[in-house]
Amino acid sequence: MPTFPVQRWSAEGCETVEDHVAEEEPLAVELRHGPVAERKRSPATTTMRTPGHDADLAVGWLYTERHIGMAADVIGIVQVEPNLIRVDLHPEVEIDLARFARAGYASSACGLCGKTLLDVWEDDLPKLAATPHMTWELVTALPAKLAAMQPQFHQTGGVHAAATFSAAGELSAVREDVGRHNALDKLLGAALIDDDLAGPIVLTTARAGFELVQKCAVAGIPVLIAVGAPTSLAVQTARRVGMTLIGFLRGDRFNVYAGTIT
Amino acid sequence: MPTFPVQRWSAEGCETVEDHVAEEEPLAVELRHGPVAERKRSPATTTMRTPGHDADLAVGWLYTERHIGMAADVIGIVQVEPNLIRVDLHPEVEIDLARFARAGYASSACGLCGKTLLDVWEDDLPKLAATPHMTWELVTALPAKLAAMQPQFHQTGGVHAAATFSAAGELSAVREDVGRHNALDKLLGAALIDDDLAGPIVLTTARAGFELVQKCAVAGIPVLIAVGAPTSLAVQTARRVGMTLIGFLRGDRFNVYAGTIT
Repeated sequence: MPTFPVQRWSAEGCETVEDHVAEEEPLAVELRHGPVAERKRSPATTTMRTPGHDADLAVGWLYTERHIGMAADVIGIVQVEPNLIRVDLHPEVEIDLARFARAGYASSACGLCGKTLLDVWEDDLPKLAATPHMTWELVTALPAKLAAMQPQFHQTGGVHAAATFSAAGELSAVREDVGRHNALDKLLGAALIDDDLAGPIVLTTARAGFELVQKCAVAGIPVLIAVGAPTSLAVQTARRVGMTLIGFLRGDRFNVYAGTIT
Repeated sequence: MPTFPVQRWSAEGCETVEDHVAEEEPLAVELRHGPVAERKRSPATTTMRTPGHDADLAVGWLYTERHIGMAADVIGIVQVEPNLIRVDLHPEVEIDLARFARAGYASSACGLCGKTLLDVWEDDLPKLAATPHMTWELVTALPAKLAAMQPQFHQTGGVHAAATFSAAGELSAVREDVGRHNALDKLLGAALIDDDLAGPIVLTTARAGFELVQKCAVAGIPVLIAVGAPTSLAVQTARRVGMTLIGFLRGDRFNVYAGTIT
């Protein structure tokens, strides 16, 4: 499991510790399928996952998405590379290639061509906006400002929120959604449409996975703060693009995984 | 916001209350794009979201997935139906249709054809396995059994787990992942491959969204229990297919959203 040096902040100040972070890497699933005389290879999906039990994941995904119907539909599984797994389907299994997702990074990243996600999309990233001066006082004051603006969460306990703040920590906009990616998309869409809703600091009530960091990077956001945990790929990505990434913001405590708080 | 009659259980017994549940519905995003003389319509994505701020979501998704680069790329937005939104792109915006996902339900469900998700996939669902006799004692004993088997969560605080249990509440298998859908796919894949890892009761440390209920339904799982909140569509789906759905399992308390505990 990956570890990173992390600044651990509390009301007493800051100490640097080596912290375990949930591992996140892309897994590409490739199929071998078709009649014996004309076997084909087709990419099925790429998912951001924690390495381990990859065969279970590939088979389970094919099953619960109804590409296969029973265990006998799979005649072999090969872990070709750490992030690429190949599932051999029974020659009589018919699959509908049109049903497989073709998301942005799915076709161009990871095992299939040897590139990492960062290699693929870093080149043409926009420059992040200037990083505000971040302090313990500013960071720990944010959750209360957001909590006052989460009507759906208070009613259901089941929706995430994302909010923009000014460099001084004033709340600019809040969006709620059952999906943490959707809440962030709503927020960054609102900020794109209306400058008054923008801000260099984004706070999410969720965990900070790679895709949240990626979305913020695309929108030029220099500071992402999460109430939940970050993933390894989120930390690596934030460091690579120069984003400040804070996680586990709870009460007067938080961890700085990328960037610096003073 | 939707409400449902819910059995609220605690050590003192059960009361039926009307409970607010986070709303979840599919949103289909359609694009109008291309030169003025030959405008086209293309489906872009379907996402499970909480209704509200749909224009922000559509624009934000297009922006953070890098299909558009600035606000001026959008020249109009029309909410065609409650779950269908159309974004008019500037005639000079070039989009790569191959980059849009074509997931299973994206093309066949919701606004685009007037069908709901349930209409689309209910017809050929397998029959669920027999529902075990569920009691307060059985349900509240499950989290401790799972907690003993979550090494990655205890190290990072950042991964979800899913577990199968026998009808008597004995743990069969546990899988962990940064993604709650992945943890469930790993679990159901393992259970498909090896009968000893299967079980009629699934516990997830996450919230219970529609897709988790759908995956369990496909795998014939009759009981889904979540530590977190359910969504409206998850509740509706569980009721429709006859699945027992429990949420907010914490300590000696939980809510029953579908099915019955005795």
